[in-house]
Amino acid sequence: MEHYEDQHRAEHEDSALIVNQGVQQPPSVNPNWKRVKRRELTTDEYVDGILSQNITILSKAITLVESLKPEHYAQAQEIIERCLPYAGRSIRIGITGVPGAGKSTFIEAIGEMVINLGHKLAVLAIDPSSERSGGSILGDKTRMETLVHNKDAFIRPSPSAGSLGGVARKTRESVILCEAAGFDVIFIETVGVGQSETAVHSMVDMFMLLQIAGAGDELQGIKRGIMEMADLVAITKADGNNILRAELAKTQFVNALNLFPTPESGWRPRVYTCSSVEKKGLTDLWSGVEDFLAFTKKEGYFKSNRNNQDKYWMFQTVNEALKESFYRLPAIENQLPDFEKKVLDGQLSSFVAAHQLLNIYFNNIAKKL
Amino acid sequence: MEHYEDQHRAEHEDSALIVNQGVQQPPSVNPNWKRVKRRELTTDEYVDGILSQNITILSKAITLVESLKPEHYAQAQEIIERCLPYAGRSIRIGITGVPGAGKSTFIEAIGEMVINLGHKLAVLAIDPSSERSGGSILGDKTRMETLVHNKDAFIRPSPSAGSLGGVARKTRESVILCEAAGFDVIFIETVGVGQSETAVHSMVDMFMLLQIAGAGDELQGIKRGIMEMADLVAITKADGNNILRAELAKTQFVNALNLFPTPESGWRPRVYTCSSVEKKGLTDLWSGVEDFLAFTKKEGYFKSNRNNQDKYWMFQTVNEALKESFYRLPAIENQLPDFEKKVLDGQLSSFVAAHQLLNIYFNNIAKKL
Repeated sequence: MEHYEDQHRAEHEDSALIVNQGVQQPPSVNPNWKRVKRRELTTDEYVDGILSQNITILSKAITLVESLKPEHYAQAQEIIERCLPYAGRSIRIGITGVPGAGKSTFIEAIGEMVINLGHKLAVLAIDPSSERSGGSILGDKTRMETLVHNKDAFIRPSPSAGSLGGVARKTRESVILCEAAGFDVIFIETVGVGQSETAVHSMVDMFMLLQIAGAGDELQGIKRGIMEMADLVAITKADGNNILRAELAKTQFVNALNLFPTPESGWRPRVYTCSSVEKKGLTDLWSGVEDFLAFTKKEGYFKSNRNNQDKYWMFQTVNEALKESFYRLPAIENQLPDFEKKVLDGQLSSFVAAHQLLNIYFNNIAKKL
Repeated sequence: MEHYEDQHRAEHEDSALIVNQGVQQPPSVNPNWKRVKRRELTTDEYVDGILSQNITILSKAITLVESLKPEHYAQAQEIIERCLPYAGRSIRIGITGVPGAGKSTFIEAIGEMVINLGHKLAVLAIDPSSERSGGSILGDKTRMETLVHNKDAFIRPSPSAGSLGGVARKTRESVILCEAAGFDVIFIETVGVGQSETAVHSMVDMFMLLQIAGAGDELQGIKRGIMEMADLVAITKADGNNILRAELAKTQFVNALNLFPTPESGWRPRVYTCSSVEKKGLTDLWSGVEDFLAFTKKEGYFKSNRNNQDKYWMFQTVNEALKESFYRLPAIENQLPDFEKKVLDGQLSSFVAAHQLLNIYFNNIAKKL
């Protein structure tokens, strides 16, 4: 049960799953149960739990997906495959914006509105820098206080360890699990400063850029490549003294977006202003989202985009699995630091080190199989 | 000998290596030899040829490095490892600039000067887009006409197939071979528009950005990240009517570079103007290169940078080798297109496809080992 205790556990796991003598039920059924023994769930228990929309089990399953242990990896893959037939029936929206653009407040406000429309909302995050920076986006529980306590919302911080490729793969797998658990709107939050936007773009139906109306430098801090991905731009904090500036920013964005060629979807990106605090402009903005989805579904782009993403993820999954197979092999894990040191000290060339490591790997693989 | 005929063969191979009854000598030794039979060279023959500075064999060895065949891969790795003790004694300079910045003309002009100073110059290129765009940088033989015919110069176009990671790895391996063949100045050319600059940066001692003095938009088209990598900026075409504009551009660049924090090397990037046609400013610029090298060698950055690059390449080599082992396995090569099609058609999920492919791979690997 070590993975249960590790740093990647979910927010929702505070009300830990309580099990007793192999029979597992949600704690709500029998409040007298104590934390007698935590044991590994079987794959059946995971899958049944997810499909019966048990949030605690969904959370545990995602923890399994994020785990670095080889045995968890295998089980996680089996769970995902068995959830796949129940997945895909959601809309997946990427939301990005530089720190300070008001992402949490925006997601709280629009998330509540979306839930009131009858949806179930999952909010995931991709932020491979979270380990370095010491804090994950969405990692602070006090943020999104309303959503966190809404039974139709599921908030999950970014996996905090691993390469961008690994983190992105885990997030995409979490999307599958959330969909199987009945969430039909998925937000994937990212910080609009790095390369994670491309990763998010490869797993969403729509990409939303959040921008705060500032002092005329609205376009700063956002890389051109990110702007070009946006299907919708939301100028946040359009309230009080900020309304005029927000409108100005909107005009600037409309002009800037007009300079880009029409994207493959055929959809011309739209710009909206809104206020998360005063809850203004959110309905308009959401109808923009619905327009986009109707348009791309009608034009066939929605489906072709998902199929292309699937092909991309086939390759990504293979490449990541090859790396995991290598770097998680105990023989490699044990000897890698020594090889690294020797290369840094100039005692061993990168080539020789790599080939010696590869020999260790393939010899071990051959023994194992 | 198929690799010999493939699209990746080098410019220099036109004067093909002629072999006869297992004895191999450069064609110049016996002009009466005919193209009787092309056979594979042994690893010894490759290594001896490279160390005796035989350009034709160097060229063939690089073709082997670039080959996509698994059996060539193994031999290439062996050649590289045996050349390693003779490598590393060069200066490696990355040269980038948008198309039209005058890279070829500049490399011809400065290359000739460098050779006249007693150096042997190898010019390699990284351009993973070359396959798509139909033409490789440095691929046009009529460019760099003087250098191509200079016995102290070796010009090699970008490997035209593969991912950026693969192309970069091949280029880095080619650097090793060129150094073992006695080339002590290595230029690595790249087009300053994509992500290949980061790859180049990971294998050079110094990074040079070429910029043409234009109509006030000097900074356009160059991404900020690339500017930040530059140790030296050369404003080219500073001749005729262009001199004033070049000086203006220089001032702009000096100002822009001052906004960046001092790089890890501790070296403040310098800006030079030069004319490749009139051969002006080149001596100054080259003394800037020598200043940089003296500075970083004195400060220890030169060595620590190379060691860090080595560590990076250890991981890269492992990751690439894992992928090659997978994608070059005949069973995978045969079945991959079918899997791709099924995923694109929505008949198979990316996960299931990936895991079926991985099963095929590991089963085959187990049989092979």
